[in-house]
Amino acid sequence: MSDSKKDAPPPAEKGHARTVIFGSQHDRIVERLEGLDPDLASHIQGFAYDTVYDNSALDLKTQELIACALLVSLGSPPELRTHLRGAMNAGATEEEVRGALMLCVPYLGFPRAVAGFEALRTYLQDQDKKKG
Amino acid sequence: MSDSKKDAPPPAEKGHARTVIFGSQHDRIVERLEGLDPDLASHIQGFAYDTVYDNSALDLKTQELIACALLVSLGSPPELRTHLRGAMNAGATEEEVRGALMLCVPYLGFPRAVAGFEALRTYLQDQDKKKG
Amino acid sequence: MSDSKKDAPPPAEKGHARTVIFGSQHDRIVERLEGLDPDLASHIQGFAYDTVYDNSALDLKTQELIACALLVSLGSPPELRTHLRGAMNAGATEEEVRGALMLCVPYLGFPRAVAGFEALRTYLQDQDKKKG
Amino acid sequence: MSDSKKDAPPPAEKGHARTVIFGSQHDRIVERLEGLDPDLASHIQGFAYDTVYDNSALDLKTQELIACALLVSLGSPPELRTHLRGAMNAGATEEEVRGALMLCVPYLGFPRAVAGFEALRTYLQDQDKKKG
Amino acid sequence: MSDSKKDAPPPAEKGHARTVIFGSQHDRIVERLEGLDPDLASHIQGFAYDTVYDNSALDLKTQELIACALLVSLGSPPELRTHLRGAMNAGATEEEVRGALMLCVPYLGFPRAVAGFEALRTYLQDQDKKKG
Amino acid sequence: MSDSKKDAPPPAEKGHARTVIFGSQHDRIVERLEGLDPDLASHIQGFAYDTVYDNSALDLKTQELIACALLVSLGSPPELRTHLRGAMNAGATEEEVRGALMLCVPYLGFPRAVAGFEALRTYLQDQDKKKG
Repeated sequence: MSDSKKDAPPPAEKGHARTVIFGSQHDRIVERLEGLDPDLASHIQGFAYDTVYDNSALDLKTQELIACALLVSLGSPPELRTHLRGAMNAGATEEEVRGALMLCVPYLGFPRAVAGFEALRTYLQDQDKKKG
Repeated sequence: MSDSKKDAPPPAEKGHARTVIFGSQHDRIVERLEGLDPDLASHIQGFAYDTVYDNSALDLKTQELIACALLVSLGSPPELRTHLRGAMNAGATEEEVRGALMLCVPYLGFPRAVAGFEALRTYLQDQDKKKG
Repeated sequence: MSDSKKDAPPPAEKGHARTVIFGSQHDRIVERLEGLDPDLASHIQGFAYDTVYDNSALDLKTQELIACALLVSLGSPPELRTHLRGAMNAGATEEEVRGALMLCVPYLGFPRAVAGFEALRTYLQDQDKKKG
Repeated sequence: MSDSKKDAPPPAEKGHARTVIFGSQHDRIVERLEGLDPDLASHIQGFAYDTVYDNSALDLKTQELIACALLVSLGSPPELRTHLRGAMNAGATEEEVRGALMLCVPYLGFPRAVAGFEALRTYLQDQDKKKG
Repeated sequence: MSDSKKDAPPPAEKGHARTVIFGSQHDRIVERLEGLDPDLASHIQGFAYDTVYDNSALDLKTQELIACALLVSLGSPPELRTHLRGAMNAGATEEEVRGALMLCVPYLGFPRAVAGFEALRTYLQDQDKKKG
Repeated sequence: MSDSKKDAPPPAEKGHARTVIFGSQHDRIVERLEGLDPDLASHIQGFAYDTVYDNSALDLKTQELIACALLVSLGSPPELRTHLRGAMNAGATEEEVRGALMLCVPYLGFPRAVAGFEALRTYLQDQDKKKG
């Protein structure tokens, strides 16, 4: 393996990804996860966010765009909404999010991609309702 | 939908993604695809690369990191090698590529991610052999 | 590769598959896709239907039976309804459609196949309601 | 449900699909399956072939084209070769098989489809070697 | 292969798994399956339950815990509820079921596992409503 | 949620699952994982094994049988061999392992299950070579 580990950016402040991605929904999301299973909630926060997300050479916006694509590969489960919002909280424009979803077309086919665009439309409509 | 389409970057010069991603392997790759099926080769070049990749709001490096993750979701088929190299051709550091593969752990589980890291190791070893 | 390309049937009139499959729902479907993303709608019509479907050696009925099976492999997303109807618009009997869904049992297992039969039952019930 | 079950074709002679699909490879294939697990071999012959395949309203050629697409959805495991040959044994032309594989592009994406075309190329090359 | 087939437990009384897993819901479940397709219902009962489940060296509780994990791998379709209940009918404690779902985290990732825990929570809430 | 967490078995001694599953291959496996990526190796040991496996209400044998089924759902990647051996190290008989693989037939279909039985056959043949 190469020596490039010396050039990795310093780990983000712990809990950074979780704070940005969950935003104002943080307590609601954690409460829901704890209601599913306390250990599951602990692992998602401690491992997925505080260990993987917060120790990456990638900036949070790029991580969230990748996360959206991965969720599309899984059939666009409810988490996709959280990470569409997380991507935009982390600075992605709507067009950049559309770019991530569109790349799913050649790699995964149209049905998987369409489900991703459906989730995006629902999210944007709800955003418009809150503003209007 | 919003008006943000006005802010999308101008489409890349046609064939740009294909040129960077395939690099010096371009003719070899195209010849292999044509040997599989001429229409398939035409669609991959004309639709996947020249239409989807080249009309994205995302820069090529980000697209390739997303592509690597999507290929990991598919079980790391042979195309992953092409896009690990494509990501680096487009400016990703090895650590950034590792970041994309590592994000597959919480989203897809360890087996899928390990297969991606295996493909990366094989690619890096082959790169070292060429230099050494 | 062999010379059998000379024997392929002449390409279908452009837009043929789309017309038969979407039937009376054409404008509604296109409008919904454009509401998701204009480029996505364009690619589905121009690439999936007008390029792949309309340039196949397979008759439309066979293509639609294959499409139904592929959608079952993806977990029977909403598109399955469109292609169950498309298969019948293209001349498949209900028993032929059941044959395509049943073949998913040995290849994909019972849960995936059951979801396909659920989509068929819902579609047939809605057809009965319209007639009754 | 409708009354269309009265119109289903009479069940095929038992073991018909298996005989056509396995062809001259029948004993070799059965022996290999029995070496994996005797019950598994029994279920594949008795349930997959003699029950599902042989009691379908679909002709064997159509079933095999669907089977090839389903195997592509699974990442083109070794069974795909058996069913590419099975499709052709049942009367499919090479162009019809290409049509089934190509339909996987819009439904499953390019990587899955490419793996299917790779299996086809390998099969056709081996056929040419036997003739030449 | 080894000689261990001599040590397999005697096959269960036919229909045993189905009786325990479906419990009081047996007639309702069979009626629903027959409404989807009579042959499908016959195969599920005759092959899945009476042939595979009832001829296993594994006790029913272990089989049901495995079944729950497999259904999580498929995205937690409606059958998961039946087999969460089936696992408990066969003697699994709630903690043992949570153990099976939690193992899906490292193997399949968090989104798939979360969907499984959601199904469990819904099932337990409905159980509490019946008791309360 | 219920109170059943009080009845969970005490957590296993840390590193227990890893010791039993990796057995004599422990150092070789860890070295290979570290060669893929040091963080990945750390997470697999620290999270998958020492956190999830070692804090389960399920005994290790049951966990390994579930793990084998989950790996079959992923297309039987190389890890399956490790966990077939792990299941037997944890006390599963060959017939119990066959039971776990056979349950994959109705849930995932024959192709996925066959790949699992292929991995088992290869593993058993290698075991026979070592003894003979």
